[in-house]
Amino acid sequence: MLEFWQRVAECNPNHQNKVLTALDPELSGEKALFSNGRLIWESHKDGFFSVHQKEISALTGCGLRLVDGKQVFCDFLSGEKMLVVCGAGHVSIPVIQMGKILGYCVTVLEDRPVFADNARRTGADRVICKPFEQGLREISGGKDTFFIILTRGHRYDQTCLEIIAAKEHAYIGMIGSRSRTARVKEALIEKGVDPGTLERVYTPIGLDIGAETPEEIAVAIMAEIVQVKNKTGRKGGYPREILQAVLEPSRALTEKILATIVSRKGSAPREVGTKMLIYRDGTTVGTIGGGCLEADVRQAALRLLSRANSKSCLYHADLTGKDAETEGMVCGGVIDVLLEAL
Amino acid sequence: MLEFWQRVAECNPNHQNKVLTALDPELSGEKALFSNGRLIWESHKDGFFSVHQKEISALTGCGLRLVDGKQVFCDFLSGEKMLVVCGAGHVSIPVIQMGKILGYCVTVLEDRPVFADNARRTGADRVICKPFEQGLREISGGKDTFFIILTRGHRYDQTCLEIIAAKEHAYIGMIGSRSRTARVKEALIEKGVDPGTLERVYTPIGLDIGAETPEEIAVAIMAEIVQVKNKTGRKGGYPREILQAVLEPSRALTEKILATIVSRKGSAPREVGTKMLIYRDGTTVGTIGGGCLEADVRQAALRLLSRANSKSCLYHADLTGKDAETEGMVCGGVIDVLLEAL
Repeated sequence: MLEFWQRVAECNPNHQNKVLTALDPELSGEKALFSNGRLIWESHKDGFFSVHQKEISALTGCGLRLVDGKQVFCDFLSGEKMLVVCGAGHVSIPVIQMGKILGYCVTVLEDRPVFADNARRTGADRVICKPFEQGLREISGGKDTFFIILTRGHRYDQTCLEIIAAKEHAYIGMIGSRSRTARVKEALIEKGVDPGTLERVYTPIGLDIGAETPEEIAVAIMAEIVQVKNKTGRKGGYPREILQAVLEPSRALTEKILATIVSRKGSAPREVGTKMLIYRDGTTVGTIGGGCLEADVRQAALRLLSRANSKSCLYHADLTGKDAETEGMVCGGVIDVLLEAL
Repeated sequence: MLEFWQRVAECNPNHQNKVLTALDPELSGEKALFSNGRLIWESHKDGFFSVHQKEISALTGCGLRLVDGKQVFCDFLSGEKMLVVCGAGHVSIPVIQMGKILGYCVTVLEDRPVFADNARRTGADRVICKPFEQGLREISGGKDTFFIILTRGHRYDQTCLEIIAAKEHAYIGMIGSRSRTARVKEALIEKGVDPGTLERVYTPIGLDIGAETPEEIAVAIMAEIVQVKNKTGRKGGYPREILQAVLEPSRALTEKILATIVSRKGSAPREVGTKMLIYRDGTTVGTIGGGCLEADVRQAALRLLSRANSKSCLYHADLTGKDAETEGMVCGGVIDVLLEAL
């Protein structure tokens, strides 16, 4: 299966990448990887997934589906969420801080060395200290890239927006009043930038929460980005930390269980597609929501590891039951968790 | 004037406290402090403020006003913004982080020592590791206190909400689905808690931005709190860092300038009432928006300090002018900054 994980890691994040895992007893644990509708890899010897390629192409979103009457879990692989911040002034600093808390890979573009250093100290993953035109050449963009334009002046904002509008993106937000940013957009339309793209630029940037201080503006921006991100449906897939742990040579052969939420009803804490890795020694990578639920899944995973020849199973957690009531648990709902021995 | 500052520091933050500063050439720099409509202190020998007490009582909000035809700056003193987080689970941790970034004084209540330690490590200003009923006795509440109920179960949430509903508060938010939290509220109404207060509890907690992960939920909560806070109009006053700097014995006699934004038009970065302290050596405490504007105000303050017998002046900054245009500055607008030698 290591080959499967390598293929997943190599996937172009801007393609539509799908992983299918069979839950049917007959095919239990068999996996396939599709990219832009094309079969890249499958574990099934007789080519179950290859045979049903057409049917599988039509599947959308993350969840339990039927292929030829057999239950499979369809997982949509989104890329790593990237935040590209143009400018490292007083609003950018809390944006970087919150971006890191939210788990984004944060790149900052800034032409002034002192400000670029501030961004580095704040914890940006990458800081490009070059004129904006030049720095933006090093940013590829993509369906999971969120651009935030916060430079010190409209001239620079305009330069950045012109270049960014031509890149693939999940979100573009630009600071400034309605009238100022309208003028920037007008100037860019005259220069031939696509009006449709400019119309979709979020400006004034951030949700309208009456933000005043730089930190409050950062909250408004991040709230807007969370909203946009979770509307795209680009969820699911393997968080970087899990993919790294699976592929790390030193631990590649260590027995472990991948736990994936494959269905959810009610107000269970985390969404379908959320994953966690459990090692035999009880250590974990990632989280499927914490609390009693996560502890139960961890126990079930350790039991599965201790059974010989057990490759995978579904674990059913009912948080609406008596136990949860007695504890006064925060979350109700029912979830199914797929446990797979890797 | 040191007496004035001591009186300000001693003000009951739950009263309506007002500071008036005369801008009129005749009365320039004279100050008065009112609390709940009562004159607490004034610098004017002939009692200008005391004479016009009635007129002054009727003034609301932060800004330039007229008293007996003379221009004064009316500043509303809000208390320090407090965040009280019940529970130190996986959502509380990013709430604490963001609360600190936003400048709140963060208190966490948690009965489990391991979780309480997590809150301490995350940077909470105060962690009370006691049963919730007991810990909440140590919280006074107030018009600037934001309560966030995020315990591990509805039983605990209910306990917390029952006690908090009886305290003065700026905001109460409680996690949980609509149906679960409705049941908690019903139970409390049966126990005699005021239905009106319960109706104003924010639940499900946080703005509806499709938040999924604990960190995203924290953004939704903080965005909601910023929105509520900035609607209350409880703005203005002296940030703790400035009050501390003014009252610090070692620097009390050091010459310094207090810069206060007293009026704003257009999209200037910070609101009326925002303050900064500038020392003769050029060091500053607080920020009125950063950038060129702040640098200009700092220069003007240093010029005022170098002039003998100059107690105060108004500094006019026009960001819509040619300089700002040439620079392509982010912010337009016009602001007036009151500079006072302390």
